[in-house]
Amino acid sequence: MNWRLVLNLLSKLMVLEAALMLPSFFVSLLHGEQALLVFGVPILALVALGLPMTLKQPASKDVHAREGLAVVALSWVLLSLFGTLPFLLSGVIPGFINALFETVSGFTTTGASILNQIEGLPHGVLFWRSFTHWVGGMGVLILTLAILPKLSGSAATLARAESPGPTFSKVVPRMRDTARWMYAVYTVLSLAQLVLLLISGLPLFDAFIHTMGTAGTGGFSNRNASVGAYDNPFAEGIITVFMLLFGMNFAVYFKLLRGEGRASFHSEEVRAYWLLAASAILVTTLLLIPQYGNFFTALRYSSFQVSSIMSTTGYATTDYVLWPQFLHILLLLLMMVGACAGSTAGGMKVSRVVMLRKAGAREIGQATAPRRVRLLKMDRKTISEETLRSVLVFFVIYMGFLFLGTLIASMDGHDFATSFSAIISCLSNIGPGLNLVGPSGNFDIFSPHVKVLLTFLMLAGRLEFIPLLTLFHREMWKTGH
Amino acid sequence: MNWRLVLNLLSKLMVLEAALMLPSFFVSLLHGEQALLVFGVPILALVALGLPMTLKQPASKDVHAREGLAVVALSWVLLSLFGTLPFLLSGVIPGFINALFETVSGFTTTGASILNQIEGLPHGVLFWRSFTHWVGGMGVLILTLAILPKLSGSAATLARAESPGPTFSKVVPRMRDTARWMYAVYTVLSLAQLVLLLISGLPLFDAFIHTMGTAGTGGFSNRNASVGAYDNPFAEGIITVFMLLFGMNFAVYFKLLRGEGRASFHSEEVRAYWLLAASAILVTTLLLIPQYGNFFTALRYSSFQVSSIMSTTGYATTDYVLWPQFLHILLLLLMMVGACAGSTAGGMKVSRVVMLRKAGAREIGQATAPRRVRLLKMDRKTISEETLRSVLVFFVIYMGFLFLGTLIASMDGHDFATSFSAIISCLSNIGPGLNLVGPSGNFDIFSPHVKVLLTFLMLAGRLEFIPLLTLFHREMWKTGH
Repeated sequence: MNWRLVLNLLSKLMVLEAALMLPSFFVSLLHGEQALLVFGVPILALVALGLPMTLKQPASKDVHAREGLAVVALSWVLLSLFGTLPFLLSGVIPGFINALFETVSGFTTTGASILNQIEGLPHGVLFWRSFTHWVGGMGVLILTLAILPKLSGSAATLARAESPGPTFSKVVPRMRDTARWMYAVYTVLSLAQLVLLLISGLPLFDAFIHTMGTAGTGGFSNRNASVGAYDNPFAEGIITVFMLLFGMNFAVYFKLLRGEGRASFHSEEVRAYWLLAASAILVTTLLLIPQYGNFFTALRYSSFQVSSIMSTTGYATTDYVLWPQFLHILLLLLMMVGACAGSTAGGMKVSRVVMLRKAGAREIGQATAPRRVRLLKMDRKTISEETLRSVLVFFVIYMGFLFLGTLIASMDGHDFATSFSAIISCLSNIGPGLNLVGPSGNFDIFSPHVKVLLTFLMLAGRLEFIPLLTLFHREMWKTGH
Repeated sequence: MNWRLVLNLLSKLMVLEAALMLPSFFVSLLHGEQALLVFGVPILALVALGLPMTLKQPASKDVHAREGLAVVALSWVLLSLFGTLPFLLSGVIPGFINALFETVSGFTTTGASILNQIEGLPHGVLFWRSFTHWVGGMGVLILTLAILPKLSGSAATLARAESPGPTFSKVVPRMRDTARWMYAVYTVLSLAQLVLLLISGLPLFDAFIHTMGTAGTGGFSNRNASVGAYDNPFAEGIITVFMLLFGMNFAVYFKLLRGEGRASFHSEEVRAYWLLAASAILVTTLLLIPQYGNFFTALRYSSFQVSSIMSTTGYATTDYVLWPQFLHILLLLLMMVGACAGSTAGGMKVSRVVMLRKAGAREIGQATAPRRVRLLKMDRKTISEETLRSVLVFFVIYMGFLFLGTLIASMDGHDFATSFSAIISCLSNIGPGLNLVGPSGNFDIFSPHVKVLLTFLMLAGRLEFIPLLTLFHREMWKTGH
């Protein structure tokens, strides 16, 4: 392991985090809050610690697999640790475990909160809380790749490890250009949503908060009742559409820009994503008509909630815990699936689920005629057995964490649906779960040791397990190659 | 597909089922019950329908994969359909869906019941109900192989499809000898338990019922309060030990008989099985001391319940739904895992779980050094990538059925733990689940359509999915090869 290189990259990330705190610093300043203490001190600390280390150039700049994984895992840990400072210094969240939970929930775009009273908190802190969504959504290392002078040839390792999904699609040959292009689309889409939300009548600050929460598919709000507080169907519609748009594979936007028109949507994953969203919205709407009185009110709430869950955002306009039991399970399944690879969303990703379905069907076909060779195809390309195996193992790890996590969480004595859905919610980076952690609930009900577990699971889920788990593998700590 | 061969084998099974009804017929006769109607009619029907067809010899006797799968799946369906007759003709279970549920629950050694009042039912019917456990535990086709004149060379296909576990170990070269040998061990162990239960003071009929329920890891009792009704620590101890013994890979007994001594237990699966059982019993005991007052009473209840769940038997001496939430989840996890391959138990099997763990660990190691070739080993032998893939896909299918099954079951509106655990209980062939389907509960709470689903899942789980699912694959219905 080339520790020099790892430290050099990590120190650059610390300086980057200082820069990322600047917008919140100005928001804080603008509102006459304790900007110097709450953001000035962390910024200085990050620069003072990070800058000297960036100057020590490592002998070799080759990012091998091990270095890539270590940088990804450690940078997310480091960003989260320093990210707690504004919460701690402002006194908004006095305890370290709670502050870490909230920060990791932000960066991983989970949006699960231990705060019971959000309205009235300092603007700067709320801005920082939601800004972590925006940065974490697309990825901090992809941001690094986009803005730093280019790394060695294998920098794609970093992006691959941070970017969600079973495969990483470089839309343009050079990694740095891909990263820049992705952030450009991300920024343009975010600005479009911001303008539309302002038009819909949301105050400037609220529009910023909810745009960042939507873009990162995070879900932090500055209102206790989340998006439901506005009772504004126009704003709800905008957020519904943008949640689904940010949950789509960004390669689609690239193809659209390149003028490929309808062909841009010719991806099995994207089609399955929209089909799943549409069917889930339809079923939910029909089942909710008795509760909401008519089709359109039912559609309003169901489309928002289904899009919020599928895109793993977690905003709420109503408490779906009051919906029929069948819809609880439907939402739980959507939470596990999540949205598209190459988006800002969490969960297993639609493409993996499609591959799992194909692998199951092949196994059954294989049993009927064992000697025939059957290739799995997706988008007319053969899925390599290696990719398939890693998708299958991903599923096993996800379920392993889900069930063992539920076991540990159940020590707190909450009902099964609460524990189980809390774990899914954190693993898939959703935010709310069912029952006590539903949209009206709060993660503060858990004991400190369960909060630490949930924090770990949010990070593990965001990084899709491998980078974080390799930290516990002895191969990583050997010297040499 | 060679339908002639399939029909010939199925007709032989019908005659076999007639023979299997004879013990219950005599029990019924002995107790002066309606033996002629309840068992005489079904026996005559099976012989009348089956015998003529057995005489039509198929041109080819080669059992290919497709024929093997079709025979396995259809024979279980057929046996279950005719197995309902004693319930229906005696009037013990008037409805067909309920009778089918109870019969499939018997043959698949699940032991989930829709009967609320068991005590007082005709002895013949109760004997038949439990006898299906004994036959279904080791397998009807393995029984067929053991007693019928030998089939073609590829008869192992049948045994492989019916026998639980990722791989099938022929302990002796010839398939028929393996089948005979397995039934011999099975019978000897059962007789040993029967004698011990008689010594412990159980009445003859009760001892028979509980031996058959234990041997098949089924769980049907002739008492409403299950084994708890006797309040007999000696009988509980015997059943505890035998539940664990019947959950162990039968190859161990073969090695023991061959005089391999301690080396017989040198199997990773068997060691993991005992380790898991011991740790689960220890943890459960410690957590139950506050409830039961002292270590030994806690040990008595915890060892029985953990063994009952792990071996997928489902007998109860206490209502574990009243235990702490943590133990609910622990039992739920043990339900999914189940016991050893090559035993009479259900669930995913310990060997599969061990392989899944190894596959996960390898994937993480692989990430740190992508170019190194890593072979997965079990018992010092390399696991083929094909076996591994089928184990991974098995896991995906299990989870797919679990989650989609829960979604459908939730239409009945019961709480999440009830629906979820009912599905696990049926998939893993346990019997009881949590909350409303706990040891004091009953599966009669479900609507007819959910009962049909649960019946399907019990069969799917017992046959480990593939044989039953291939029936829905178009390859199976093509003519020719």
